[in-house]
Amino acid sequence: MPRYKAEELVTFCSDLLTKIGMSSENSAIVADSLIKANLEGVDSHGISRLPIYIKRFLDKRINLEPQIDFDQKSPSVLVVDGDNGLGHVVSYKAVKKGFDMAKNSGISAIAVKNSNHFGTASYFCQLACNENLACIAFTNSPPGIAPWGGKSAFYGTNPIAFGFPTGNDVPVIIDLSTSIVARGKIIFAEKQGTRIPEGWAIDENGYPTTDPGEALKGSVLPMGGAKGAALAMAVEILTGVLSGAAFGPNVKNIYNEKEEGNANVGHFFIIIDIEKFMDLNSFFHSINDLIKEMKLVPSRPEIEDIRYPGERRKSAADQGRINGIELSGNVEKELSMLGEAYNVFFPSCIEKSAAL
Amino acid sequence: MPRYKAEELVTFCSDLLTKIGMSSENSAIVADSLIKANLEGVDSHGISRLPIYIKRFLDKRINLEPQIDFDQKSPSVLVVDGDNGLGHVVSYKAVKKGFDMAKNSGISAIAVKNSNHFGTASYFCQLACNENLACIAFTNSPPGIAPWGGKSAFYGTNPIAFGFPTGNDVPVIIDLSTSIVARGKIIFAEKQGTRIPEGWAIDENGYPTTDPGEALKGSVLPMGGAKGAALAMAVEILTGVLSGAAFGPNVKNIYNEKEEGNANVGHFFIIIDIEKFMDLNSFFHSINDLIKEMKLVPSRPEIEDIRYPGERRKSAADQGRINGIELSGNVEKELSMLGEAYNVFFPSCIEKSAAL
Repeated sequence: MPRYKAEELVTFCSDLLTKIGMSSENSAIVADSLIKANLEGVDSHGISRLPIYIKRFLDKRINLEPQIDFDQKSPSVLVVDGDNGLGHVVSYKAVKKGFDMAKNSGISAIAVKNSNHFGTASYFCQLACNENLACIAFTNSPPGIAPWGGKSAFYGTNPIAFGFPTGNDVPVIIDLSTSIVARGKIIFAEKQGTRIPEGWAIDENGYPTTDPGEALKGSVLPMGGAKGAALAMAVEILTGVLSGAAFGPNVKNIYNEKEEGNANVGHFFIIIDIEKFMDLNSFFHSINDLIKEMKLVPSRPEIEDIRYPGERRKSAADQGRINGIELSGNVEKELSMLGEAYNVFFPSCIEKSAAL
Repeated sequence: MPRYKAEELVTFCSDLLTKIGMSSENSAIVADSLIKANLEGVDSHGISRLPIYIKRFLDKRINLEPQIDFDQKSPSVLVVDGDNGLGHVVSYKAVKKGFDMAKNSGISAIAVKNSNHFGTASYFCQLACNENLACIAFTNSPPGIAPWGGKSAFYGTNPIAFGFPTGNDVPVIIDLSTSIVARGKIIFAEKQGTRIPEGWAIDENGYPTTDPGEALKGSVLPMGGAKGAALAMAVEILTGVLSGAAFGPNVKNIYNEKEEGNANVGHFFIIIDIEKFMDLNSFFHSINDLIKEMKLVPSRPEIEDIRYPGERRKSAADQGRINGIELSGNVEKELSMLGEAYNVFFPSCIEKSAAL
């Protein structure tokens, strides 16, 4: 597959978004989040999402320049109305305020309603870690998981993410959907034209399927059976109920052409200022001891070394910055057509450049 | 199996604990937590634990009457040193302070070090729900789960629990270990002399086992594969690192006769005052809508009705209060011997009483 320079894709993204009317401040946030996802190997949440976002901006289902309302209820509680903006932008601005609040009071909670897809939850955890804060991030999403005992999708695939700084450039970043697999991976498989493994999903009649299209109409299975379904419910309550956002099947799916109205996605963030609990260097010392001890556990024969969540992500991003980001034929074609349509330069791929 | 009246077991527990020197205030807390676990069908965290607690009080590995230190770092942050007290007592007092803090500032975080096993995490979530607060509770525990790729236990089975009030007497209570199964269930199987299902655990050499004794020497498997192992790590960081408690294999196992020194278990609680986010009645309205809509999802043929986490627990407890609590022969024998040794009346079982 052809590879593209990360910084050229960032420029393409932000240029395209400003061209259709987004402020340069906001388009820089979206571009940064999307390309970071590609760099970290989470292509399902990367630049392949740009075409649907653009479409939804143009048909007014997502607000290009939202008037976000920040209602600080206490030194520790922030309630945000995203005015139907893209989740990346709404959440970026919300967590930045939450960081300041946490630095003041030790912990802050941010409930966001009237938002949209926010990209990867890990993005916000990394922002927190950059400021030596810990973060727990949750979001709901259009129905993906059946309640335990049910046969059709009700809860979103509702990720839970944690970020903990380590005092070096590889924070512990845990980001997992409460489904067996992120719904984005099924959307990506459909886009790529590949089948999905057995055990990932059931179709709309409750039967197992390996067809990503059928799976998207049905339900992804929860991680760990009933436990995963229970976690999905907890996330739905924090992000959908406590924020005043939509929940369950009331969260609209931007991929569905027939749906109307705001998606009204909800997010929930908890930001923790480590220094209010203990000396920051003691924390770094301890978390690195934990990591060191964990790596000394005897590994299974097939495993080279035990890694912690965040390590693979970091090394993939380092590699990606050197070797470029791979785009599949479908994604490349969609993006270059968008570039042509809006007269925004779509970069040449690295191999082609090298061949010149 | 013989059944016992719940209130008589509560009296037995607290009488026994006061007899060996615990204050009546503290013994009432422990008895309440243990018997609630039995009532709710979580026998592994119920009165069967009393003999080991008593033993550890007597051999001074757990402090009967700890001088708990509460260090309030900010209106939202409480750091607690449990002085090696039993976790039930330390955590009860810590969360009660946390409830007041959350009511004041909207959210509170409580990090506890130098504690011990605290019973079920759901117990503290229910306490929060009784005051219309939401709660997220975490604890670490002696090594039970291998890190992903490793073959021996490192992380505790580290439960995550959520409590959300519903405005009625059945709150949403989610309480799950990040292992495929709670380690307590394996301890219970060993006590009962039964085998455990395949897929629950590996032995100390990394091979699958159905022998609970071998499993306790080896490692329980995480829920949902790598995701469960990552969640266990997140819990270990919040409860072990951020609190200043022990983490990983440094957490002592009170069942192990050879270990010495404090277990130094850590807990972490987040308490959320819903009213600081939205009107309480609106929250109740929405969460009940969520539940109602969830119950309308078409169910699988084998499922009678879709229930939410907390419902089974509540109906089991209601039944238990009427029909009594079943104790296995081993547990009954251990408890009645303890009663004899300390001259504390061990109640007659319900069937025997009825037969008189």
